[in-house]
Amino acid sequence: MQPNFTSIEEFFHILQHLPDEHADARAEAEARNGQLTKPPGALGRLEDLAIWYAAWRGNPRPQIKAPQVVIFAGNHGVTAQGVSAFPAEVTAQMVLNFEAGGAAINQLSKAYGADLDVHALALETPTADFTQGPAMSEAELVEALLKGWQAIDSNSDLLVVGEMGIGNTTCGSAIAMALFGGDAEDWTGRGTGVEGEALRNKADVVARGVEVNPDSKNNGLEALRCLGGRELAAMAGAIVRARIERIPLILDGFICTAAAACLEAAQPGALDHTVAGHVSAEAAHSRMLKKLGKEPLLSLGMRLGEGSGGALAIGVLKGAIACHSGMATFAEAGVADG
Amino acid sequence: MQPNFTSIEEFFHILQHLPDEHADARAEAEARNGQLTKPPGALGRLEDLAIWYAAWRGNPRPQIKAPQVVIFAGNHGVTAQGVSAFPAEVTAQMVLNFEAGGAAINQLSKAYGADLDVHALALETPTADFTQGPAMSEAELVEALLKGWQAIDSNSDLLVVGEMGIGNTTCGSAIAMALFGGDAEDWTGRGTGVEGEALRNKADVVARGVEVNPDSKNNGLEALRCLGGRELAAMAGAIVRARIERIPLILDGFICTAAAACLEAAQPGALDHTVAGHVSAEAAHSRMLKKLGKEPLLSLGMRLGEGSGGALAIGVLKGAIACHSGMATFAEAGVADG
Repeated sequence: MQPNFTSIEEFFHILQHLPDEHADARAEAEARNGQLTKPPGALGRLEDLAIWYAAWRGNPRPQIKAPQVVIFAGNHGVTAQGVSAFPAEVTAQMVLNFEAGGAAINQLSKAYGADLDVHALALETPTADFTQGPAMSEAELVEALLKGWQAIDSNSDLLVVGEMGIGNTTCGSAIAMALFGGDAEDWTGRGTGVEGEALRNKADVVARGVEVNPDSKNNGLEALRCLGGRELAAMAGAIVRARIERIPLILDGFICTAAAACLEAAQPGALDHTVAGHVSAEAAHSRMLKKLGKEPLLSLGMRLGEGSGGALAIGVLKGAIACHSGMATFAEAGVADG
Repeated sequence: MQPNFTSIEEFFHILQHLPDEHADARAEAEARNGQLTKPPGALGRLEDLAIWYAAWRGNPRPQIKAPQVVIFAGNHGVTAQGVSAFPAEVTAQMVLNFEAGGAAINQLSKAYGADLDVHALALETPTADFTQGPAMSEAELVEALLKGWQAIDSNSDLLVVGEMGIGNTTCGSAIAMALFGGDAEDWTGRGTGVEGEALRNKADVVARGVEVNPDSKNNGLEALRCLGGRELAAMAGAIVRARIERIPLILDGFICTAAAACLEAAQPGALDHTVAGHVSAEAAHSRMLKKLGKEPLLSLGMRLGEGSGGALAIGVLKGAIACHSGMATFAEAGVADG
């Protein structure tokens, strides 16, 4: 699919005209679920997941054959404010590690049969320090949204988007504060390892970012532009493209969810084709998921990013769909249904 | 391995002399974990799981290649007391469904690459109604323990044990009350679908079971014999065999955990080679896991039994081991480690 936006206004227009799930497929999947050889509701959330997946795929008895994990990497001017325990060079080093197959996401993608694509977004040109002004120009935002849009394989049947970017938990915190209010401390956590005085500094940087970029408050796309970064914008573009293609998508952790929250703020319901793969150890992630009405599938204390929590949830989705589409009905199996 | 017990006393002797994990492998796995290309602890419980698995396998960089799911089915005289929403015939019907490949556990086993074995245990001869006396004689208990012991393939590298047995949540509740005290209501849930008056009756049946079998109180093997059933005893036998073979094992839901709790009561530490795959919607399951000090991997509102929650957790374990054994170290990847 050719990209069909060249400005923020055009992207916003797409957001306002998103396709819905297939009501017929939902009804048929619900009917099938009620006939499977188990007590009603006994598979718990696996049943909801399967019906949700079927509804978006337009197929009451779907299969997952081609999951895709897409990772975007970006660098951030705000690292000049000392918000991360790691140097910015690590972003590029980790991209090489992804490309060489050595990172956690490589192993998880392989374990769950997903294709993995990694997109390094202008790592040599960090976004502007958002304590000084907007992180990105409108043109930079649009370019990053397009990178995400174009990264999606329309033949995929399940997506995970993730990120790598030293300093980007600070972006996630600033976006959350801009969209949901509250104090910077409510939304600021230790990321990959800051604590004590460094953590207090990080919260101060978050507060200054929102203060310096007042248009970001309660404005999803402005929050994404002013406080986000290329990898966050690319995730947002990918999420919208997935919606257009009706490909169900698993959100990863705090930063991915912050990018997604920008879409939901811009257009309520924009995340209906997504589930929260996990809740991370970054405390603000749980708070953000509650604001979005998303119940995470997994809670394993992960806080790595790079799509890892979302990829782990592919396994759960696969199990849910396998049960839904593979189980016998009471009639087929000759089992009394209570 | 030939079974090496012919009496409860001999089984108890085995319980008192269980092998431990390999301390060397644990130390080497911990060292490796600290060198992988991620911030310390960023994979959360996946790291603990991988180290635990490595320690039991005696291999600091293990793989999961041969998971095995074993399901035991039994019938229960206590169904005469009207404790289930389904007729006892469903146990045998579901065994046929397992054998035909139509149940949830068939789909989950296939999805996670596990072999599935189903053992129907004397379905035509239900255990005695435990409101009238012990469910099983000592000989019946030993026979069922042996069935479980013999069901384990010593070449498996990960095990899930599960069950099918109309009426067996009542057994689980009675065992929990006998081992952990409290009121019958604390341990009695709706199983596959009893509520209202039927649920009150079920709690009464549980209380009578414990009252009629006073030796079951605080006595793991007597609780298993007097209040359990063949499939619970077989799960217990399988869990001990797994320990002997040092095969890590994933516990399933409420009934599986009740069977396991009998071992822990008989010999503290007997479950060190196990993890709780999930916490089910049966409210007493969460309470029982807390008593056992087991934190569940998944919480998805499942309440099906038949190993389904444990099998779903195979996917999580596989992801954990894939990361641990497949990731590059900081040195290998040339990534700065903060």
